[in-house]
Amino acid sequence: MIPAYIVAIGDELLYGQTLNTNAYHLSKMLTDVGFKVIKHLSIADERQVILDTLDEMAKVAKVVLITGGLGPTKDDITKKTFAEYFGVGMRRDENVLKHIDDLFSSRGRMMTEMNKSQADVPTNCKIMHNAYGTAPGMWFEKEGCIFVSMPGVPHETLSMTEKEVIPRLLEYFKPPFIVHKKIETIGVPESILAQTIEEWENALPSHIRLAYLPHLGKVTLRLTSEGDDKEKIETELDEQVKKVIPLIEKYVYGYDGELIEEIIGNLLKEKNFRLSIAESCTGGYAARTFTQHDGSSAFFEGGVIAYSNDVKMKVLGVKLDTIIKHGAVSEQTALEMAEGVRKTLGTNIGISTTGVAGTGGGTPEKPVGTVWIAYSDENETVAKKYQLTKNRNLNIQLTTNAVLNLLRKKLKGIE
Amino acid sequence: MIPAYIVAIGDELLYGQTLNTNAYHLSKMLTDVGFKVIKHLSIADERQVILDTLDEMAKVAKVVLITGGLGPTKDDITKKTFAEYFGVGMRRDENVLKHIDDLFSSRGRMMTEMNKSQADVPTNCKIMHNAYGTAPGMWFEKEGCIFVSMPGVPHETLSMTEKEVIPRLLEYFKPPFIVHKKIETIGVPESILAQTIEEWENALPSHIRLAYLPHLGKVTLRLTSEGDDKEKIETELDEQVKKVIPLIEKYVYGYDGELIEEIIGNLLKEKNFRLSIAESCTGGYAARTFTQHDGSSAFFEGGVIAYSNDVKMKVLGVKLDTIIKHGAVSEQTALEMAEGVRKTLGTNIGISTTGVAGTGGGTPEKPVGTVWIAYSDENETVAKKYQLTKNRNLNIQLTTNAVLNLLRKKLKGIE
Repeated sequence: MIPAYIVAIGDELLYGQTLNTNAYHLSKMLTDVGFKVIKHLSIADERQVILDTLDEMAKVAKVVLITGGLGPTKDDITKKTFAEYFGVGMRRDENVLKHIDDLFSSRGRMMTEMNKSQADVPTNCKIMHNAYGTAPGMWFEKEGCIFVSMPGVPHETLSMTEKEVIPRLLEYFKPPFIVHKKIETIGVPESILAQTIEEWENALPSHIRLAYLPHLGKVTLRLTSEGDDKEKIETELDEQVKKVIPLIEKYVYGYDGELIEEIIGNLLKEKNFRLSIAESCTGGYAARTFTQHDGSSAFFEGGVIAYSNDVKMKVLGVKLDTIIKHGAVSEQTALEMAEGVRKTLGTNIGISTTGVAGTGGGTPEKPVGTVWIAYSDENETVAKKYQLTKNRNLNIQLTTNAVLNLLRKKLKGIE
Repeated sequence: MIPAYIVAIGDELLYGQTLNTNAYHLSKMLTDVGFKVIKHLSIADERQVILDTLDEMAKVAKVVLITGGLGPTKDDITKKTFAEYFGVGMRRDENVLKHIDDLFSSRGRMMTEMNKSQADVPTNCKIMHNAYGTAPGMWFEKEGCIFVSMPGVPHETLSMTEKEVIPRLLEYFKPPFIVHKKIETIGVPESILAQTIEEWENALPSHIRLAYLPHLGKVTLRLTSEGDDKEKIETELDEQVKKVIPLIEKYVYGYDGELIEEIIGNLLKEKNFRLSIAESCTGGYAARTFTQHDGSSAFFEGGVIAYSNDVKMKVLGVKLDTIIKHGAVSEQTALEMAEGVRKTLGTNIGISTTGVAGTGGGTPEKPVGTVWIAYSDENETVAKKYQLTKNRNLNIQLTTNAVLNLLRKKLKGIE
């Protein structure tokens, strides 16, 4: 057990101006390779506070990852405080200076003296390259404890942790290998999943740990084991995965963090199918789920956000009669929307959502959370009803996950 | 200066399974009413760790807000540890028990013994009502320091903090009033904004503090002052706001956290206008920006996500000739998309986005980050070009903010 601490430096965190996402990501990355994260701390950008914190950490930690407190206008205090803590002076690093110069040249700008000073570091640190910014990372050792200082800008921090910090920590501490296998499921409640695999779970060897990680209608099953023989552990976990999959196959959309929208994208590309989406209650969220990823244009043709009944009729061809008889939130409307968007946009597949997301709009017959989704291809058009929550944004996300799952099942031929 | 600490209890935070958003929101809420947040801590769900942390806090804090560690399966340790720390026993609270019973009855379920035990609390605490869940909040006093324990589910924590904790803290400590006035701007870089208001800023009385808070193409100007006479401070800040507004009027979309999409919604409703959106590069994000809020159907008619050129032509009526001559990312295409969606969906106003969001798709003439947006009403159709970043999701968000700002300016008659 190698104890690790994560410290964020920055007044903006304590004022509630910035959300500390770094602690979350670094915790995950450290945990994944076998370090034990003991505590997160967010502290002020002040010399004495930083000194006291480093002192406290040195007594209990083997690894201290420090984010923030660097940057052209403020790194002066933090870096000099590190030098003071370790009892060393400062030096200007020529490689870092050249990197800063290159970054500025590429943007057609000149370095100021303040920019140059970003290349100043305590003499006892090793430099970690910052591919995306000017502030270098710094690696310090003191009495068997590693202190790592990184800039706080999330994409700089995460890239540096992945490429520089984790490999060096593994090299330094050589912890036992920790192997995780994740099975990504959707459309099954945690309790049903647990019942379904109960026998398999009870038969797991005691050194293999199982965790259920539920999230918005999805549940990740995570198997974890550790030891010195990585290959052996992996084989053993793979065997357990092979055993459990037949029990839950229809719920499983992927492995090890794969996203359902990417899995669906791959299935569509394989079949050379194009997809269109008609959204009412999800209001663009379902389309956005695909289009946030690079490369979605390879299978995603487009969509219609049919928020009003007029758009449902004019653009998607939903019948006035359907709206009058069944209402906009109904099986018949969902079916006509999915078929309509498929035909209007000329795609192989169309999907649709219509529902009462809330907070307003509920009736006794169709309370907030009533949702219909549909799927249409050239052979069939089918709809499915859900009764979700009272929370608008939760309903939008759950509906999106439901319609993606319906699409996945149809593409895979799962009933 | 009343020092406050925020402690999150939960192994899931240290494993990197859950992002700690509570610390961010609670920091903001405490700072806004004049408490000084000194540190955030995330710690494990363990008796000794909790005891040590409470000990450490008692030495330096006046206020300690503790989130998490409560809930039917785990609150046993946390609550008993509090009782141990304060040297008291436990009691079952009848009001809490009734509240839990009511919650379960409304869902048609029976309480188990585990559910009932959520009504058990240390004898020295005052109960804080949890409107949204079963775990009550607990208020402890020890030697002039207030310890508040709350459930960790964000909407429960935030609601309880707002309705119960902050009012009681203000009553207990009677801190000087802190008043903030925020001016929300868009479409102007921080540096230009600072130059524009430099003279006004230099003339600010020294007890009024000014902060620039930039975020995705928007900058919030925050004026802060404090004292015992709330009305006097407010009047003084209002006068400063009145002085600065004429200098920056065209950039100002709102005050005190108002959202630009809600401001636009109000303007549209006032004029009885309906809006439609044609999105290429933003892929649903612009529509989603409106539809995430309850009540958007009062002005938002719908949209077309015209990801492919075919949809641009078939649904929006963009001319083939335009695509061939100018390309999908061009002024002409943006104009035809905005006009096309306005006419197809029969709305007063149509807006559009088309661009190279990235990561793929750039060319030397139209590199990643090249974006056109357009606005169309019955009198005019205009487009605007942006050269944004290399980051796909940043480009999507910046484009959305740009087109919302164009819409706002047109609705307000700002050139």
